[in-house]
Amino acid sequence: MKILIIGAGSIGCLFGVKLALKSHEITAIGSNNVYMTIQKQGFIFEVDGKKYSKFPSFHFFSKDSFYEEYSNEAHTLFFDYCIVACKSYSLSQIISEYHYILSQFSRIFLLQNGLGNEEILKLKYPEMNVYRIISTMGAELVANHHLIQTGSGLNYVCHISSFICETPFDLNDIEPIHYFVQILNEADISTEISEKSLQKIWEKAIVNMVINPIGALWRKTNGELLTLSYFWEIAEDIISEILSILDEYKISINSKDQLLQIIKNILQLTQQNSNSMLQDLKRNKHTEIEFLNQKVVDLAKNKKKTAPFNRLVVNLVKGIEKRN
Amino acid sequence: MKILIIGAGSIGCLFGVKLALKSHEITAIGSNNVYMTIQKQGFIFEVDGKKYSKFPSFHFFSKDSFYEEYSNEAHTLFFDYCIVACKSYSLSQIISEYHYILSQFSRIFLLQNGLGNEEILKLKYPEMNVYRIISTMGAELVANHHLIQTGSGLNYVCHISSFICETPFDLNDIEPIHYFVQILNEADISTEISEKSLQKIWEKAIVNMVINPIGALWRKTNGELLTLSYFWEIAEDIISEILSILDEYKISINSKDQLLQIIKNILQLTQQNSNSMLQDLKRNKHTEIEFLNQKVVDLAKNKKKTAPFNRLVVNLVKGIEKRN
Repeated sequence: MKILIIGAGSIGCLFGVKLALKSHEITAIGSNNVYMTIQKQGFIFEVDGKKYSKFPSFHFFSKDSFYEEYSNEAHTLFFDYCIVACKSYSLSQIISEYHYILSQFSRIFLLQNGLGNEEILKLKYPEMNVYRIISTMGAELVANHHLIQTGSGLNYVCHISSFICETPFDLNDIEPIHYFVQILNEADISTEISEKSLQKIWEKAIVNMVINPIGALWRKTNGELLTLSYFWEIAEDIISEILSILDEYKISINSKDQLLQIIKNILQLTQQNSNSMLQDLKRNKHTEIEFLNQKVVDLAKNKKKTAPFNRLVVNLVKGIEKRN
Repeated sequence: MKILIIGAGSIGCLFGVKLALKSHEITAIGSNNVYMTIQKQGFIFEVDGKKYSKFPSFHFFSKDSFYEEYSNEAHTLFFDYCIVACKSYSLSQIISEYHYILSQFSRIFLLQNGLGNEEILKLKYPEMNVYRIISTMGAELVANHHLIQTGSGLNYVCHISSFICETPFDLNDIEPIHYFVQILNEADISTEISEKSLQKIWEKAIVNMVINPIGALWRKTNGELLTLSYFWEIAEDIISEILSILDEYKISINSKDQLLQIIKNILQLTQQNSNSMLQDLKRNKHTEIEFLNQKVVDLAKNKKKTAPFNRLVVNLVKGIEKRN
C-alpha cells in the first residue's frame, strides 16, 4: 500500500517505520530539522533494544523537499491512505499547506491527541469521512533521527464527525477501514475498530489531560508518575472535575475508577516514555494544552460552571511554554 | 547586643551578618554543611555588588559544634534576643534540640514563613511572648558559604499567639521590642512594629502561597514571574479561593486587588530572587507547603468546603519534592 503521513513527528514516524518494515510505501512529511538530520545521519528505529536503519520504502520529506521532489504534480500523486499526525494546534496550518493533496481523499485518519480536531477538518471538508486513531503507543524521536518506541498498547480507529455527537460508522466506507486496520495489525500496530468513538476519544483525551501536563510540569517519565501518590491525588481531582462537566452535557463515559485504571495500565505499558507534552516543552515547542484541559475549561464556561483544577493546569503549562 | 539566631539559613544569615556589620555579637546556628564550608572557605556576604568577608562578631555553628563549644554551659549562656529562623517544618525539632536555651527566653522572634508556627511554640512555652518577623527581604546562600542579598523590602514585627485570633501587644513587653526594632533599622533591616499581626501574617502567607509554589514549579525567578500573564491568572485564582475560605472564618484582610499589588511590589523589589521554595527544591530539601497552601486546604475542609486551586498546588509541589 502507498501511505501518506502528514505531520510525522514521533508517533507518525512510529506508524510509518512499522508499516515500512512490512514493505508498504511510506511518504512521511515532517519537520525540516528532522529532514536535514536524516539526510546527514540516516534514520534509526529502535524497539525493545533492537535497532533498524534500513527502510527502503520509508521516505521522509520536509514540506519544502516534498514540494521540490514532486513540484507541481503533488496534487496528482496517488496514495491509498492518508494519516495526519501533526500536533492539534498545527492542523489548520497543515490543511492550508497540503490542501491540494488532502482534498483528494474521501477519508482521512487523524493520529492525534486532543478534542475538537475533527471539527477543524470537517469545517474545510464537510464530505470527508474523518477517522481518529486513538493510540496508546509511545515513541520518542531523539536527536531528530533516532526513533525509540517507548511503549506499546492497543490502538482504536473511530469514525467521528464531532467530539460532542456520537456518529455511526458510514457503512459504505467500512470495507477499506477493515483493510486498513488489518494492515496496521500486520505491522505490529495492534488496532481495533471501535464504534464507541465518543467514549474512546474522551477516554484518551482524559488520559492525556492527566498524564501530560503533570508529567510535563514535573519533568517525569510515565514510570515515575506511576509510583507517586501525589500524582494519583491530582489525577482523581482532575478526573472528577471533567466528569462533572461532562455530566452537564449529558455525556456519560467511564467512571472515575475505570479511568484511573486505564491511566495505570497505560503508565505501566509506557514506563520509559516521556509524554508528548514533556517532549514538546523540552524542544521549546507549543503544547497541545488548548486541545486538552483548555477544552474542559471552555465546556465548563459554556455552562456557567468553573473547572478550577483544569484551569490551573492550563495556566501552569502555558507559563512554562516558550511561547512567552 | 548579643543575639542568638537558631536555624540560620539564608534569611537568618542575612539578618545575622547585617547585625554583625553593626558590631552586634551574633551566634548563628545552622546546618552542618554550611558550617563545614564556612570553616574551610570562609563566609562571604554580597549586597548590591559589594562583597564582605570579615565578620569578627558573626559566629556560625552547626548544632554539634555549638554544643561542643559550650559543652554543658549552653543553658547558662546569655543572649539579649533570640531569633528562630528555621523552616516551619523543623520548628518542633528545633524546640526539642534547643529546649534548654529556648526555655530561658521570655520572648522569641520567629523569622519564618507560613501559618501556625507560633502555635507550635506556644504549645511548648505557653507563657512566652511570641513575635513574628514578617520579612519581604530576599537572600540566597550559594555554595553553602556565599550569601547574596537578592531583594530588599520592609519587615514587620508582630505580636501573636495564634494565627486565627488577633492578640493585642503585651504592653509590659513593648520597650524591649521597640529597642530590637531600632537595632534592626540601624543595621539596614527596615522594620516597623505592626499591631495588625493577623493581617500582616496572612498577607505574607498569601504572597508566599502564590509566589513560592508557582516559582518553584516553573523554576523561575521573581523577576521572570512578574512579566508572565499566566502567573497573574493563577495568582488571581489562588487569592480568590483563599479569601473565600477566610470569609468562612469571618477573617477579613486585604482585597484581592490589594494583595495582587503587594505581590507585584515584592516581585519588583526581589527580581533576582529565586523564592525559598525553589531554593529548597534545588537543594533536595522539604518545602514549607504544609505551612502555606496546605493550611488553606485544611481550613476549607474544617468548614466542609474545598480549595481546589490550593489543593492542586500542594500536590504538585509534593510530587516534585525529593521526599518521595
